[in-house]
Amino acid sequence: MEDKAQIQEAIKIQGEVVRKLKSEKANKEQIDEEVAKLLELKARLGGDDGKHQFVLKTPKGTRDYNPKQMAIREKVFNTITRCFKRHGAETIDTPVFELKETLTGKYGEDSKLIYDLKDQGGELLSLRYDLTVPFARYLAMNKITNIKRYHIAKVYRRDNPAMTRGRYREFYQCDFDIAGQYDAMIPDAECLKIVHEILSELELGDFRIKVNDRRILDGMFAVCGVPDDKFRTICSTVDKLDKMPWEEVKKEMVNEKGLSEEAADQIGEYVSQHGGMDLAERLLLDPRMAQSKQACAGLSDIKLLFSYLQLFQVTDKVEFDLSLARGLDYYTGVIYEAVLTQAGVSNDAQNGAEESVSVGSVAGGGRYDGLVGMFDPKGRKVPCVGVSIGIERIFSIMEQKAEVSAEKIRTTEVQVLVASAQKNLLEERLRLVTELWNAGVKAEVMYKKNPKLLSQLQLCEETGIPLVAILGEQELKDGVVKLRVVATREEVDISRADLISEIKRRTSKA
Amino acid sequence: MEDKAQIQEAIKIQGEVVRKLKSEKANKEQIDEEVAKLLELKARLGGDDGKHQFVLKTPKGTRDYNPKQMAIREKVFNTITRCFKRHGAETIDTPVFELKETLTGKYGEDSKLIYDLKDQGGELLSLRYDLTVPFARYLAMNKITNIKRYHIAKVYRRDNPAMTRGRYREFYQCDFDIAGQYDAMIPDAECLKIVHEILSELELGDFRIKVNDRRILDGMFAVCGVPDDKFRTICSTVDKLDKMPWEEVKKEMVNEKGLSEEAADQIGEYVSQHGGMDLAERLLLDPRMAQSKQACAGLSDIKLLFSYLQLFQVTDKVEFDLSLARGLDYYTGVIYEAVLTQAGVSNDAQNGAEESVSVGSVAGGGRYDGLVGMFDPKGRKVPCVGVSIGIERIFSIMEQKAEVSAEKIRTTEVQVLVASAQKNLLEERLRLVTELWNAGVKAEVMYKKNPKLLSQLQLCEETGIPLVAILGEQELKDGVVKLRVVATREEVDISRADLISEIKRRTSKA
Repeated sequence: MEDKAQIQEAIKIQGEVVRKLKSEKANKEQIDEEVAKLLELKARLGGDDGKHQFVLKTPKGTRDYNPKQMAIREKVFNTITRCFKRHGAETIDTPVFELKETLTGKYGEDSKLIYDLKDQGGELLSLRYDLTVPFARYLAMNKITNIKRYHIAKVYRRDNPAMTRGRYREFYQCDFDIAGQYDAMIPDAECLKIVHEILSELELGDFRIKVNDRRILDGMFAVCGVPDDKFRTICSTVDKLDKMPWEEVKKEMVNEKGLSEEAADQIGEYVSQHGGMDLAERLLLDPRMAQSKQACAGLSDIKLLFSYLQLFQVTDKVEFDLSLARGLDYYTGVIYEAVLTQAGVSNDAQNGAEESVSVGSVAGGGRYDGLVGMFDPKGRKVPCVGVSIGIERIFSIMEQKAEVSAEKIRTTEVQVLVASAQKNLLEERLRLVTELWNAGVKAEVMYKKNPKLLSQLQLCEETGIPLVAILGEQELKDGVVKLRVVATREEVDISRADLISEIKRRTSKA
Repeated sequence: MEDKAQIQEAIKIQGEVVRKLKSEKANKEQIDEEVAKLLELKARLGGDDGKHQFVLKTPKGTRDYNPKQMAIREKVFNTITRCFKRHGAETIDTPVFELKETLTGKYGEDSKLIYDLKDQGGELLSLRYDLTVPFARYLAMNKITNIKRYHIAKVYRRDNPAMTRGRYREFYQCDFDIAGQYDAMIPDAECLKIVHEILSELELGDFRIKVNDRRILDGMFAVCGVPDDKFRTICSTVDKLDKMPWEEVKKEMVNEKGLSEEAADQIGEYVSQHGGMDLAERLLLDPRMAQSKQACAGLSDIKLLFSYLQLFQVTDKVEFDLSLARGLDYYTGVIYEAVLTQAGVSNDAQNGAEESVSVGSVAGGGRYDGLVGMFDPKGRKVPCVGVSIGIERIFSIMEQKAEVSAEKIRTTEVQVLVASAQKNLLEERLRLVTELWNAGVKAEVMYKKNPKLLSQLQLCEETGIPLVAILGEQELKDGVVKLRVVATREEVDISRADLISEIKRRTSKA
């Protein structure tokens, strides 16, 4: 058991935190997070009645999706799935956990963020960390040498959550990958086309897609005099350029990583450059770069890539950026990352606050020609290129947009409520709603024997049901149903025989 | 390290198992399972080159879904989701893991089957065991007192897998629940209507829905002289009546559970009875049953339930069955279970074998009025009733049906392949496919600079793409595209301006 006094002290401090945030009108999610911590502490003290008290919360870094959030999520998934299907992708699914050793050695330093399952006898298992490694395992296991597939599923990372910025421990990835031996840069260009289509369709504001190539980075490091064994660590320092100014990055290279000042300066010259196909052409003529075969191969491919991107009509958003250096170990060629460049929507419209959300990277990917070979007993390689859409950040933005917008989000698709104007008509209502269900109409009744007409109409207003089919003694006698349009309050008698087609006609227009 | 000789011995034995199954022409999945075990053993021996050898498999009791299986899965999910939405349900999602204590004390003996996560510092977590307990936690946490929601997601049980019969350790549940204080039996009847609609629409063959009530069972035990503290254990013995004859069930009651022979015989008389509303009416007149208020309340509700089921037009499949006794602790009222009564399809049509699959229960549920209260700090109850569709068994049947059927399952929705008849037309192909994508047409190109026309046409045959848009020098000069219908080999020149509407026209008919 814990020390009660200690917990009480912690509750006092946490209470202060919550009060302070509230007084500062901090954003709601942040306050909720701190309140949750407070409740957890209080729960640990136990109830006064001595009964065990449940901690009513989801695990750290996770959340429930309520029906409104699900409606938004469904919309985003539909847009993404439609795009993947438009490009001819099949889909697969893999288990949420893998043998622990399947994930071992694929993520470098990030391996410490992998969730392991408890050893309860049997195999050692871990929750998947991304969808790429399971995909590679799937290809090797089934000896598949070419496929275009998408996979939308949750992945798990024991990271420090920052839920207000859409960073969770359980989150969705939407992956699209092309595996197979093909002519250079054609599948790579299609991945970028897909990112462009999805980010445009979701209307998240302006965005940019940065492109680079692992071979150019490695070649650049070589010609700048970085020792071979420092490529990876210098690369991860370069990766910080989107968060730190060059001076600090240089300091880390020289002071922490032990790089010579001269080499660092040479790198600095290169990584400040960005442009389009012209930059690749210029660098191909750079005498220092010319010393590296690798770099030249990468630069030629970037040129080729841009020529395809022109045909795909997406060069307006794509930029060749020598400072892009994605973290994951398994990339071997082209790499890319999409960032939203707009400030984001205000998330506190009521107070007129101008707080904006920085969402950073929303998609990333690249070529990984060696990963499948790591699983194949004979090391046979299957070249792959893919992209992963980071959907949680997109959700955050869409949710905030929805909150700000006046438009009401419906969480059901009910077309008609079967209602009664008088008492004792439950059986008639059930009979009619059965007719509607059997004809494929989305319909509801209230689960009361004798609901008031007013409360039935209110239910429609609240949940956005557009039509009410009202039964009364007179209507039953006349063989009709009174169909009421909720928005206009217009009412019209429809014969029972015509009701279904009338409902379908009126709701298909919407 | 393991003892090599031991593993080699195990490999020998396992090899025998596989050979025996093959010689007996056992079913494919069973052989695959045993082969997988063999491969795992071999992998444990390590490769000859001394390099570490990966075990290329998914964890025990889990599987990947390939594109064909996903196509079937999508079809089944669409049918189920459509039904849930037709009945006005919203949807929610919860994390794949919960705080361990959220699951504690909800599943009785089955708790040993819960997957725990390793303690890596922080909270103690477990994978969800079903969707009902997370739903109750969600309601209590958000103080929701009424909602109609569906939830389709994976759950986890460390059970003994029997994958040939669709029993996995990771499997989908499709849950529909109605929470709220309503008039008796109306939501309960709707749950049964939903089961009826879904099983009918999926065309899985004939089925039966058995209905009973926990209060009738408890009342019956009481009037038959079962001591209070033996209700649960006698109940779980009754639950075995679908697998064992009465004589064996009775033996277990008397010999293992210590029930008097007389009490057992009285139970035996009751549990052999099944029927419809008439049976409920007869039992209400039974002088022994009349002694139990509980039983009478249950029987009256069954009568009322059947009157609603008549209005819903589903009594043809529903049967009041006194032997139905579902295992889970949390049920408090009506319980039900759907079973397929047909033998199942042959799964080895090629050999003309008559092997059939027993699939057992495909849906189940009931009323649980106390579960939400277990989470609420003040014990406030929210009455709930729901149903869970056990989708994996349904998948097994659908997959086997698909294998037997001549119909080819498409795994993509591509409408047109953009092809070229001559060399050096890659750029033109990319230009055209961009036009099609931008217009929302599902289109592909082969990722080759100069693919042969024949191999482009073969791709269409293999993957079921119905149309080919063929570009050649002449077509480009004339401003047309040759549109080829794959099925009929008919070819027609279409002007570039009309191409998109022509493709949409031709593919919307399908």
